Amino acid sequence: MRFVDSAPEAALPKGVKDFLPLKAAKGEYLQQQLRKVFSAWGFRPIVPPQLEFLDELEKGLGEELRELTFRFDDRQSGRLVAFPPDITPQVARIVATRMREMPLPLRLSYAGRVLRHAEQQAGKDRDIFQTGVELIGLAGPEADAEMIAMAVECLSAVGGTEFSVDIGQVDFFRGVMDGLPLTGELAGKVAGAIARKDSSELVKLLELLSISDQSREEVLALPRLFGGRDVLDRAERVVRNDRSRRALENLSRVLDVLEVYGVLDHVTLDLGELRGLNYHTGITFQGFLSGIGRAVCSGGRYDNLTGQYGFPAPATGFTFDLLNLLFALDRSLDERVTLGTDVLIFAAGKDLRPAQKLARGLRQRGFSVARDIIDRPLEDALDYARKTDFKILLAVASEADDVRIIRIRDGEEQSSSYRELLSESFTLKLSV
Amino acid sequence: MRFVDSAPEAALPKGVKDFLPLKAAKGEYLQQQLRKVFSAWGFRPIVPPQLEFLDELEKGLGEELRELTFRFDDRQSGRLVAFPPDITPQVARIVATRMREMPLPLRLSYAGRVLRHAEQQAGKDRDIFQTGVELIGLAGPEADAEMIAMAVECLSAVGGTEFSVDIGQVDFFRGVMDGLPLTGELAGKVAGAIARKDSSELVKLLELLSISDQSREEVLALPRLFGGRDVLDRAERVVRNDRSRRALENLSRVLDVLEVYGVLDHVTLDLGELRGLNYHTGITFQGFLSGIGRAVCSGGRYDNLTGQYGFPAPATGFTFDLLNLLFALDRSLDERVTLGTDVLIFAAGKDLRPAQKLARGLRQRGFSVARDIIDRPLEDALDYARKTDFKILLAVASEADDVRIIRIRDGEEQSSSYRELLSESFTLKLSV
Repeated sequence: MRFVDSAPEAALPKGVKDFLPLKAAKGEYLQQQLRKVFSAWGFRPIVPPQLEFLDELEKGLGEELRELTFRFDDRQSGRLVAFPPDITPQVARIVATRMREMPLPLRLSYAGRVLRHAEQQAGKDRDIFQTGVELIGLAGPEADAEMIAMAVECLSAVGGTEFSVDIGQVDFFRGVMDGLPLTGELAGKVAGAIARKDSSELVKLLELLSISDQSREEVLALPRLFGGRDVLDRAERVVRNDRSRRALENLSRVLDVLEVYGVLDHVTLDLGELRGLNYHTGITFQGFLSGIGRAVCSGGRYDNLTGQYGFPAPATGFTFDLLNLLFALDRSLDERVTLGTDVLIFAAGKDLRPAQKLARGLRQRGFSVARDIIDRPLEDALDYARKTDFKILLAVASEADDVRIIRIRDGEEQSSSYRELLSESFTLKLSV
Repeated sequence: MRFVDSAPEAALPKGVKDFLPLKAAKGEYLQQQLRKVFSAWGFRPIVPPQLEFLDELEKGLGEELRELTFRFDDRQSGRLVAFPPDITPQVARIVATRMREMPLPLRLSYAGRVLRHAEQQAGKDRDIFQTGVELIGLAGPEADAEMIAMAVECLSAVGGTEFSVDIGQVDFFRGVMDGLPLTGELAGKVAGAIARKDSSELVKLLELLSISDQSREEVLALPRLFGGRDVLDRAERVVRNDRSRRALENLSRVLDVLEVYGVLDHVTLDLGELRGLNYHTGITFQGFLSGIGRAVCSGGRYDNLTGQYGFPAPATGFTFDLLNLLFALDRSLDERVTLGTDVLIFAAGKDLRPAQKLARGLRQRGFSVARDIIDRPLEDALDYARKTDFKILLAVASEADDVRIIRIRDGEEQSSSYRELLSESFTLKLSV
């Protein structure tokens, strides 16, 4: 059943998709792999609701996500209600209001869907699948390292071969920017040029400001502070401000733990990296698979988020964007994910009961089995079995007759007594 | 981590819930069990979107669900967009528009969430978890039987011990009602009295009509046509109209197949049963677990639904309401679903690396492992491990020292060399 996503989706609003069986099975597989990693690290699932009061939700949303939030007047409460555009603020609310008595740290995982108004660009998803974890109650670098090591392990578990996790530190960046006399609009332009690593634009923008040579040097260094562990040394030679230097010390300790966890090879530092989500407070990171520009996962520290709900606690976490992951890995999953069903049972006689009984018996033995219920010639049933990826067709006339065993792949045929098919040895026959 | 759902949920809109870890793990377990049954019968997953154009979606919605549908003006398209209140119409649309080239029958499964405006009653869910299947392209009674047998198998797979599937046949009911001169409002009252099995009210209502004794007898019989296979004989003695008699013949053939599948003991007939969803056209059914009035699953035949999307095909299916299922089985799942993590690793020395290395090694060996990252006394770590259901705490000072192995359940302690813990024999130690 190799459903190709070629049919037009004019019948659907922009930014949402139908997932036909092969894609859906691949998505399920990815989720399972991520869940296994989460569980190996001791994370436990929670499921936040699909609706929240807007004012509650907005406590944990940055400006950007607020604008993308679906909202409406609730008939029942008369209050504004929203569809969450991000799961992390929901987890923060739940921890702060319903789990505050629990001993810390909390290791929580989730797999859900959120909705966002599409931005102007074509092809932007509105129906977003987030699968991730939150580690709440830990401030130290080992907690940040745990998130990054887990992300690497996830990328490996889903079958990624070439991938990297890019690490930033928002406090390093803020330390550099703190000293600049920047107003709102200009600050945005400077941040944009840094994010694009556009050094010439940055030079121009800084000419508009009267700042010290030291400050200028620090800002101009940002787009180049990208690479391996040596970035820390290079950065230390440039920056003088305390905030940035503390951030470097923090990064250095995170890298020490990543080395113990054996994942340093997959890590890149990017001190000019500025993530969009406004709630981050320290280490941030994004995971990339080779050849795909969009990040498949992103995360970082957000020490001020649960406090918005009255329960201050340090926290860090990350989330995979399942659609980006599926897009990046689609083809490579063809070998790992198949849709095949083991057995199609065709009734060759008038009495359907022997075929139905056999279906029941084989299912109880652990096979996946469908009855070919339509009254049609054997040739048509074989054609159906071929087109829909069955492994074996069994043609059953009666309990007294031999059953024809036809391998779909090549049409090779054997036969067996009805009784024998329900015995233990049938497994062997199937793999002929 | 026995999170009790006792905290107030004033912070949430009515009809939605937070699922804390134990509940969430139980929900995941139920989903997995259902998915296994779906797969054993050859069903393949699809994932419909969270947004649809309202006019497209409404083609497949009855009046009742239309009124419960969340809708809004889409900024992008200028059209009305809706959040699906039911997954079956989405599957019908997908099959009709994107899978019409596929050979029939199609066996499709899904696990998703839908939204409905709450009705007046308190405690009604708005955020509904539907997990189900659709079997498209088959008209015969064997297809209906497949759905019912699968529902029984699902109820058994999730751990139900006493349960029943109540079967109705909307054509039997419609055959009886066809002959009556009923207007809209009165028709509703009569249907309501039948649904409540309120015979005395029914007698009163029928006195308002001038109908034949035969018709009266047929209608008055409906609330009593409830029970085992003998209901078919009783019904046949009462009804004379062709439509109802064909429905009885159909039911009889479905029961024949259910007998072969060995599930007849779990089946009850209820010919006065009227399901709310307007798209059903033949057999309908609902699954109940003992002691719980709300159905945990419901399904039936809907031969006219894909035709609404331009692709007429017979079809049948069913869906589990995961919240009702979780409500019904909550306690009985305590034995099957636990939240425990295998190992908490405590660093007893200043150097954290031996603890981190051990965590990594044990995860690679398949254990679930968390590092106790907080700098705290061993007693506090043990208390945390007890309260959050760890099995073992390992206290690691250095690679040269012996590691203390403390069983959380009873505090029993052993020790082992660091090296030995990473060898194959550690499994045995754990189960001490």
